[in-house]
Amino acid sequence: MAMTQIVRDILAKYEGETPGVKGNLARILMQGRLGGTGKLIILPVDQGFEHGPARSFAPNPPAYDPHYHYQLAIDAGLSAYAAPLGPLEAGADTFAGQIPTILKVNSANSLMSGTAGKDQAITATVDDALRLGCAAIGFTIYPGSDMALGMFEEIAEMRREAASVGIATVIWSYPRGEAISKDGETAIDIGAYATHIAAMLGAHIIKVKLSTDHLELGAAKAVYEDEGIDISTQAARVADCVKSAFNGRRIIIFSGGAKKGGDSVLDDARAIRDGGGNGSIIGRNCFQRPRDEAMRLLDQMVDIYLGND
Amino acid sequence: MAMTQIVRDILAKYEGETPGVKGNLARILMQGRLGGTGKLIILPVDQGFEHGPARSFAPNPPAYDPHYHYQLAIDAGLSAYAAPLGPLEAGADTFAGQIPTILKVNSANSLMSGTAGKDQAITATVDDALRLGCAAIGFTIYPGSDMALGMFEEIAEMRREAASVGIATVIWSYPRGEAISKDGETAIDIGAYATHIAAMLGAHIIKVKLSTDHLELGAAKAVYEDEGIDISTQAARVADCVKSAFNGRRIIIFSGGAKKGGDSVLDDARAIRDGGGNGSIIGRNCFQRPRDEAMRLLDQMVDIYLGND
Amino acid sequence: MAMTQIVRDILAKYEGETPGVKGNLARILMQGRLGGTGKLIILPVDQGFEHGPARSFAPNPPAYDPHYHYQLAIDAGLSAYAAPLGPLEAGADTFAGQIPTILKVNSANSLMSGTAGKDQAITATVDDALRLGCAAIGFTIYPGSDMALGMFEEIAEMRREAASVGIATVIWSYPRGEAISKDGETAIDIGAYATHIAAMLGAHIIKVKLSTDHLELGAAKAVYEDEGIDISTQAARVADCVKSAFNGRRIIIFSGGAKKGGDSVLDDARAIRDGGGNGSIIGRNCFQRPRDEAMRLLDQMVDIYLGND
Amino acid sequence: MAMTQIVRDILAKYEGETPGVKGNLARILMQGRLGGTGKLIILPVDQGFEHGPARSFAPNPPAYDPHYHYQLAIDAGLSAYAAPLGPLEAGADTFAGQIPTILKVNSANSLMSGTAGKDQAITATVDDALRLGCAAIGFTIYPGSDMALGMFEEIAEMRREAASVGIATVIWSYPRGEAISKDGETAIDIGAYATHIAAMLGAHIIKVKLSTDHLELGAAKAVYEDEGIDISTQAARVADCVKSAFNGRRIIIFSGGAKKGGDSVLDDARAIRDGGGNGSIIGRNCFQRPRDEAMRLLDQMVDIYLGND
Amino acid sequence: MAMTQIVRDILAKYEGETPGVKGNLARILMQGRLGGTGKLIILPVDQGFEHGPARSFAPNPPAYDPHYHYQLAIDAGLSAYAAPLGPLEAGADTFAGQIPTILKVNSANSLMSGTAGKDQAITATVDDALRLGCAAIGFTIYPGSDMALGMFEEIAEMRREAASVGIATVIWSYPRGEAISKDGETAIDIGAYATHIAAMLGAHIIKVKLSTDHLELGAAKAVYEDEGIDISTQAARVADCVKSAFNGRRIIIFSGGAKKGGDSVLDDARAIRDGGGNGSIIGRNCFQRPRDEAMRLLDQMVDIYLGND
Repeated sequence: MAMTQIVRDILAKYEGETPGVKGNLARILMQGRLGGTGKLIILPVDQGFEHGPARSFAPNPPAYDPHYHYQLAIDAGLSAYAAPLGPLEAGADTFAGQIPTILKVNSANSLMSGTAGKDQAITATVDDALRLGCAAIGFTIYPGSDMALGMFEEIAEMRREAASVGIATVIWSYPRGEAISKDGETAIDIGAYATHIAAMLGAHIIKVKLSTDHLELGAAKAVYEDEGIDISTQAARVADCVKSAFNGRRIIIFSGGAKKGGDSVLDDARAIRDGGGNGSIIGRNCFQRPRDEAMRLLDQMVDIYLGND
Repeated sequence: MAMTQIVRDILAKYEGETPGVKGNLARILMQGRLGGTGKLIILPVDQGFEHGPARSFAPNPPAYDPHYHYQLAIDAGLSAYAAPLGPLEAGADTFAGQIPTILKVNSANSLMSGTAGKDQAITATVDDALRLGCAAIGFTIYPGSDMALGMFEEIAEMRREAASVGIATVIWSYPRGEAISKDGETAIDIGAYATHIAAMLGAHIIKVKLSTDHLELGAAKAVYEDEGIDISTQAARVADCVKSAFNGRRIIIFSGGAKKGGDSVLDDARAIRDGGGNGSIIGRNCFQRPRDEAMRLLDQMVDIYLGND
Repeated sequence: MAMTQIVRDILAKYEGETPGVKGNLARILMQGRLGGTGKLIILPVDQGFEHGPARSFAPNPPAYDPHYHYQLAIDAGLSAYAAPLGPLEAGADTFAGQIPTILKVNSANSLMSGTAGKDQAITATVDDALRLGCAAIGFTIYPGSDMALGMFEEIAEMRREAASVGIATVIWSYPRGEAISKDGETAIDIGAYATHIAAMLGAHIIKVKLSTDHLELGAAKAVYEDEGIDISTQAARVADCVKSAFNGRRIIIFSGGAKKGGDSVLDDARAIRDGGGNGSIIGRNCFQRPRDEAMRLLDQMVDIYLGND
Repeated sequence: MAMTQIVRDILAKYEGETPGVKGNLARILMQGRLGGTGKLIILPVDQGFEHGPARSFAPNPPAYDPHYHYQLAIDAGLSAYAAPLGPLEAGADTFAGQIPTILKVNSANSLMSGTAGKDQAITATVDDALRLGCAAIGFTIYPGSDMALGMFEEIAEMRREAASVGIATVIWSYPRGEAISKDGETAIDIGAYATHIAAMLGAHIIKVKLSTDHLELGAAKAVYEDEGIDISTQAARVADCVKSAFNGRRIIIFSGGAKKGGDSVLDDARAIRDGGGNGSIIGRNCFQRPRDEAMRLLDQMVDIYLGND
Repeated sequence: MAMTQIVRDILAKYEGETPGVKGNLARILMQGRLGGTGKLIILPVDQGFEHGPARSFAPNPPAYDPHYHYQLAIDAGLSAYAAPLGPLEAGADTFAGQIPTILKVNSANSLMSGTAGKDQAITATVDDALRLGCAAIGFTIYPGSDMALGMFEEIAEMRREAASVGIATVIWSYPRGEAISKDGETAIDIGAYATHIAAMLGAHIIKVKLSTDHLELGAAKAVYEDEGIDISTQAARVADCVKSAFNGRRIIIFSGGAKKGGDSVLDDARAIRDGGGNGSIIGRNCFQRPRDEAMRLLDQMVDIYLGND
């Protein structure tokens, strides 16, 4: 398929970026059923690391096999598949060239106590991404954690190295830590701030959580109210994040969190679309369902992003 | 425009410095409406990182777009535009060669708790500055913070690397931290000390805040009083900082802080001029106003530095 | 002996891995009395470092000599011999080429207090492994320790370096530390999680302890019960770990711990075999017995893995 | 001037040292009015960094200008001028080749709290020393501080690098920190120990403070008393330090501290001379006086070291 | 002198070691009056760093001069002379080639508080050892200290580098720290463990203190008692350490500690000899005596190791 104008327009916003990075962004944007539309759906599978294998895969046991996820992403016509080193390697030959992959280069786990749990370990490198033919690296930052400055420095360094060899960077910007309340983790002012930090750090694709209408920080709350920023609907809050991504100059996708009803997942997708977001990153809501059911849900999501629903 | 004698004289004080650094200082000093006068006004936009996007840009929504700031600095005839990696990249092609840029290579944010908040993350490098065609790097130090020694070591190392490839260094010297009271952050003895530390570290351009007549440290207070140093006016305090910048051998500019009335901004500029300072660095007072209003204010500031007001 | 189909099938699961690593995995899988069966028994001797020489070797004094262990592993027809730098070097010439060796590159000891005891020191490198002709490096991680992220980063880096020069990686995944109770260290949910983390980090061979039917983490307990995962027998628990090793795509072996009765050791081996595990790693139960007795026990274990018992 | 025998004898004690280092020691020892005598006076100006500009320079305002100090050292016929990066650079062209310079490569400041204040930041490198044509680097260690081991490692590394390119090393050995009382900082047992540590670390020139007859450590006190070591006069205490500098095999100079009466400064110089020390390093007592007065004082010090007073 | 069979046999136990390391071990083993016997006596002089100059040298003032120690070791026909960088350099030319030297590459001092005192600073490198023509590097580890893992990693790295350029490694294994009682520092179970750790880390020569019959750790005490290990005499305890040094495959020497009566020193030597140890490392008992007395004592020690006493 020839490159569409909408994709050309998106790529043009990455000024001064290497042709290699633009080429890999194009691979993702031209892949699958949403290829060429400027919208994208990514399948991420790092939950085994983060929550353990039973909590992640026991509800749908075929998902214990890394090949399952590659195949699901391919068959559903998704835009990319993201995972840590181990599972990406486990299908590296079999699925080479069939779908763009994103190497998740840092990982957390549920066996950490206290402050140690507000950080992630770097478990793969840009060289691994090159060796495995990945289109991008993925990195989680925790704005609000006391470890955040270190995480910013890590991804700033890896992004630079990745871009210099033509690999794009996806930043998972997940606020948490000493400076933020539990409600604050999904507050809209925090979500927009997390988006902006990822953009500041040079992310090519920004991944944040959908926000609530809670406002966490007093100084920000005052501005939201004084300036009358609309945060009453999910779509409006998506739009606030898009604006915070350099006024839409950076691709931004949203995640939905733990498994929930299919209707809720589809409502999220509509809000992302209506707010001007670029798409969804959907893990547990996908691989914790039986394959047929997951395929149907993904099919409906694609339709939404195509504007058919 | 041919180099003026006043600029030649300033450059001559940078003894032993590489021609590359002198060339980039000249690019800044010869740029815009103050070009050739030895005075300069810089537009810095890192507040989105430091305070979040809503607090920074919602009062003037076009400022969400990084292109807005490039264009404002160019249209107002300013000397340089300073920003972190993300927004500089976002206009790197469009505005290449139109205005000298300063890559802010470390950044703080408002989502940090306790000691973690007394430091900044290094988010860009000298290689990034070279790649993006920047004239200088910008780096914040926090004299008074328990992290200060580490920050001094970081900028000493980056300055050396930058100078060796012809990039100039601007140090934002902002006292804060465990050793200093809130009032002390803007005390004149602390401000002059912060200036001197930046000069000691080899800064080519020193950026400090305007000071009050408060004296923070007992030992310094005694000397100020014994020697009868005049700190009664803003201009006198500027002069004390200029003296602390190797008796005026280093360019020193002053920032004004949060948004305030235009008259107040202009009074600051007059004091900087009268005290022998080299100019202003003005962010929120510039981009948080509607563009027309900001243009008028900058125009008046230029007039002041030209001696017309 | 020509490579067997069962070994070819195992190697085929290491997709995208270097021929050097596959060759070294083959050396181990084709070695000794279990060569070609896909099963393996490894002799590890790092207890002198971990518990001191008297506790390790006084019960069977010839074991003070590093040559004793090389010879025992060779004579018993085991698959590989694993030890730290010192003892491997002490027989490096005499036994060169007679049995694959695994260089244990990090080590703990019993002379540590508090948090310092939840980590290990890196005491050898990939270059040492190459110089000594080793087939693999061995590395211990402590999931659950506050030092775990650092350990993950260390082995991720060493694994990458090792694989690039054709050396395989064995990860000893031993849960312990601030986040886990004493019972939790051998809980099945934790054991399966420890297995999965090792696989995520790219281990070629995973070594974990046999588990009890205790469930440590509330969220995991709920899933085990909701999904009705069988953990009632040792073989069932081995199978749960095998599943967590990428559904059997990675070699997984089990250790038995402190010295105990021979029948108990053999029961363990049967459970490992019946649950689909690849074999045993047996240290103290081997070298703390008189040589003749150890030889008989190992002979019976081989018979079990050959399916003769 | 041809090299004198006394200087040849001193250099011969630096066994195995590179010709570059010996050459730079010779530059210092042959410089100025004491050139060739084996005695030396050094002007150090890092007090602006350590105490701030007003406390350092307001008593004699021309001293705000870095050129002032270069010129003073040259006009007074001193042996060398020592300063941090910033002020050395500020006169690097103007005074090139007129006096040996010592680049102070680490610096403390008065804006630190608690433990953070027991360390210094490395603010320049050996490469800077080469670029600026310096004869030596200067480095402060704080024996007695909890940061001391790190400081020892830093200077051990920098000394090695410096010597390999022919740059000499001066160690400022200033006891302070958690392990030492305020009186202990100038106790003779501590002063001799500080001297010995600097020698152990490979210092070419050792700079310590003059000591009192206080004995700080019980075990040392017993030895001083049992062996009847004379510490009753300043000259005797200087001799004890000289002995601790490898029995006089290393150049050792002494500093006098805060500004005091001229007679006191001269008495110090006589004691240093009579105890066998190599000379003085004099800062505040020099540049905080009016220039004429400082010139007279330095003139008298030279006379003392020449044996004329 | 041609290499003796006993030295050939010792060297043969260093399997796979570089010819350079074997050559340097041979230099030490063939040096002086014990040359060729497999026994050795080493003079170590790092006490000035560890205890200060007065406590170390005032009892015998000629010892302030580094040349004194070189000459003493040579005249007494010892096997090697060990010291930190400073004093080794101070005689590097004069004594080049006259006696093998061991560069002590890390050092402690008596001016440290708390945890900071449980570590040492690295003050020299393998490159220094090469430049100074040393036969070996010496490194102290503190098993039992919370800093021990870091120290193990440091020497593992330095040993590897040293061996790759033909320099041997001597490990001073001195238990101390948070995990060990004062009595435990010289307990036999701890002494044997310390020996074993040094061997595990790849030491070519192991230096430990002579032990008492105290047993520190409960688990070890049980084994010593159950297995009936003889620890009733100094010779028996030496033998237990020799066994822990890979059953005698590594050279092990013993130190005696603070100055004591000559008879006691000689009794120690007899116990070392009778227990199968390779010799003594003797510092304070040597250089704190008048030279004549020290020469007589060393003469008697040589006789003991030659079996004549």
